[in-house]
Amino acid sequence: MESFFKVEKICNLKNLHKNFPCINTEKIETKNALNRVTAENIYAKNHVPGFNRSTMDGFAVKSSDTFGASQSSPLILNAKYKSIMGEIPDFMLNQGEAALIGTGGMLPDGADAVVIIENTSWLNKTEIEIYTSTAPFSNTLKKDDDYHKGSLVLEKGTKITKKNIAALISSDQDEIFVFKNLKAGIISTGDEIDENKNLSHGKIRDLNRHILSAVCLENGFEPVFYGVSKDTKESLEEKTRLALKECSCVIISGGSSVGTRDITIKAIENLEDSEILVHGIAMSPGKPAIIARAGKIPVFGLPGNPFSCFCVFYIAVIPFLKHISGMKNPFDRPFVKAALTRNVHSASGRTDFIRVKLHIENNNVHAIPIPGHSGLSRPLAQCDGLLEIPENKEGGIKGEIFFVHLIQ
Amino acid sequence: MESFFKVEKICNLKNLHKNFPCINTEKIETKNALNRVTAENIYAKNHVPGFNRSTMDGFAVKSSDTFGASQSSPLILNAKYKSIMGEIPDFMLNQGEAALIGTGGMLPDGADAVVIIENTSWLNKTEIEIYTSTAPFSNTLKKDDDYHKGSLVLEKGTKITKKNIAALISSDQDEIFVFKNLKAGIISTGDEIDENKNLSHGKIRDLNRHILSAVCLENGFEPVFYGVSKDTKESLEEKTRLALKECSCVIISGGSSVGTRDITIKAIENLEDSEILVHGIAMSPGKPAIIARAGKIPVFGLPGNPFSCFCVFYIAVIPFLKHISGMKNPFDRPFVKAALTRNVHSASGRTDFIRVKLHIENNNVHAIPIPGHSGLSRPLAQCDGLLEIPENKEGGIKGEIFFVHLIQ
Repeated sequence: MESFFKVEKICNLKNLHKNFPCINTEKIETKNALNRVTAENIYAKNHVPGFNRSTMDGFAVKSSDTFGASQSSPLILNAKYKSIMGEIPDFMLNQGEAALIGTGGMLPDGADAVVIIENTSWLNKTEIEIYTSTAPFSNTLKKDDDYHKGSLVLEKGTKITKKNIAALISSDQDEIFVFKNLKAGIISTGDEIDENKNLSHGKIRDLNRHILSAVCLENGFEPVFYGVSKDTKESLEEKTRLALKECSCVIISGGSSVGTRDITIKAIENLEDSEILVHGIAMSPGKPAIIARAGKIPVFGLPGNPFSCFCVFYIAVIPFLKHISGMKNPFDRPFVKAALTRNVHSASGRTDFIRVKLHIENNNVHAIPIPGHSGLSRPLAQCDGLLEIPENKEGGIKGEIFFVHLIQ
Repeated sequence: MESFFKVEKICNLKNLHKNFPCINTEKIETKNALNRVTAENIYAKNHVPGFNRSTMDGFAVKSSDTFGASQSSPLILNAKYKSIMGEIPDFMLNQGEAALIGTGGMLPDGADAVVIIENTSWLNKTEIEIYTSTAPFSNTLKKDDDYHKGSLVLEKGTKITKKNIAALISSDQDEIFVFKNLKAGIISTGDEIDENKNLSHGKIRDLNRHILSAVCLENGFEPVFYGVSKDTKESLEEKTRLALKECSCVIISGGSSVGTRDITIKAIENLEDSEILVHGIAMSPGKPAIIARAGKIPVFGLPGNPFSCFCVFYIAVIPFLKHISGMKNPFDRPFVKAALTRNVHSASGRTDFIRVKLHIENNNVHAIPIPGHSGLSRPLAQCDGLLEIPENKEGGIKGEIFFVHLIQ
């Protein structure tokens, strides 16, 4: 049984990320923790909700007082009390008594259930009839139904999102330890890149900087751009050294001219205590990617073609960065299963990623491959996901089901 | 054929959002457009890439010069030229000539293909042997392969994300019109809410404010919090008026005490040119939700229980806000199909949303329902998605396949 979202066997990089330490932690106010990653287990400071609560509008009762009540033979209770929202009841419920209570109100001592208002009616100013037998704890939350005091609310390494921010706030911790925000140094390379307002003939725009920044921001990382390096070892080395001083990882994309990949390798090798860990990943696009380290900081060399750059960064590099930023499941990402609408080719021995448009027909999800060279930006803009053809397969045939990583 | 992500038949609110106008537009620098929504069609200012480019390291050639070349009978070409990266070749390729070129380099006039470097070898300082016949346009991108000058790059109403930022930058427009950022006014209500450092007995934390803010931020909206209103019409009306002055929508959550829903209704009815459009949505949780307008601004009244509040906001309200913020497919959201691991009950005539944990077994996605009252924060924190049981069904049985909205 695998957890959903968890796709960690990609491209044989399974455990390499664990060689890199997580970044430092800091203490912040809990109310500011959205999108941060917990650096400690978070426990409930008190019982949550902290008191027995009504979940409906109605009357707090002793459930035993209601046994036998029905539409045809209602029972009568004294209802002189009222439980006021947000206040501690200043009375105790005795046998034969009921107290008006609103959804969320605190049950008075002595009450163990709530009869909903629709199953009651006023007989006079102090007495009600009830028309239903009510079991103990009906229409109530017990004081520790959400969290028992001291119990685990969120594990270390959890990213705080829309779905667990309420649980975190419920824990009632004023401050928590989180991992610092990860700064990602981004360097573009290539003599063909033009940053002037008017694009010179023969030059191109720097697309990778924008792609990498967008993926970083989406994951909560802070992209720091160090500019476009010329295709020389000296230029690239200088920018890389600067990025290493200020960031927790360095991402170099391109260039694409003859011998540039050697320049990236040489620039990395010139850094203190550096090591090339991977040169070539068994994936397409993206094969020539580089994973290295300078001290304990990872340095990634990505292809220059925008789709190749995106694909390696999204599939292979993001798990490293998630790990460094403290997240416990760095390979999690959303996917669906979809049927290919036509045959596609891929080579055995590498994982292939195909841009696809998804659509639904007869309640089934279909994946339409979008053709186009990895140097183009159009097919990426049009796609809904990346269909993954595992390394043990040679392509896919029409109708075959594959996993598709959702790209929004 | 339905587009993927598009789930617009939920809870019979299909076209209500169209009654509200989109917010104003502004002109911004294209490089700052990430996460903004285009307010105009974006067209390519020039051909992209703008010149015929090599996609490989190799030699630019006239393809007709290579016809007949093979490993056993190589052809010889004069290779005295070199195409320098990022520069316009200052030569023209004649018959019998080749020019060294890097990936991304500009093809010289006269060349129509590239022979990859692995299929060549130097014979002497100016001549190469080539070992393969190369078809016209092989290993090249033509000058308008990505976008032809004037062609549509991105439609109006497109959110700029990691996948289309490269296409936008490629369009080479300096500035574009985008919709302004949507400000969402958030008001919590309930006498039971405690904002003091030490939580008083009988009171609870304001969870909904944090949930609503998180969902807003994830969608690129700016949440503006107007504080916790007491359970009185006057208090709520005052905060709502202030929010209406400054925001493009107002979201009121809770309270949960007897009669509070009436207070929200009355506070809205007291506003100028106001109208209750919907009181009760055919969904569970979330049935008592309110959709209203004050002038042209939508005002939403959401349930107080945190899961109900989340569910209505995420499923039913976010499409309104996406529409107002200019997005063309406001109902798009990621989902998967998954098999229920046990029977669940639901009433016919309403759409039910069940918190589920997803896991993969034998390549199939399974959905495990997470039980728990909608007043609890724990089941939401633990879930991977919301399983949707359509209104025409009464529950689901073990093994039955349903759509699950992914919640990360």
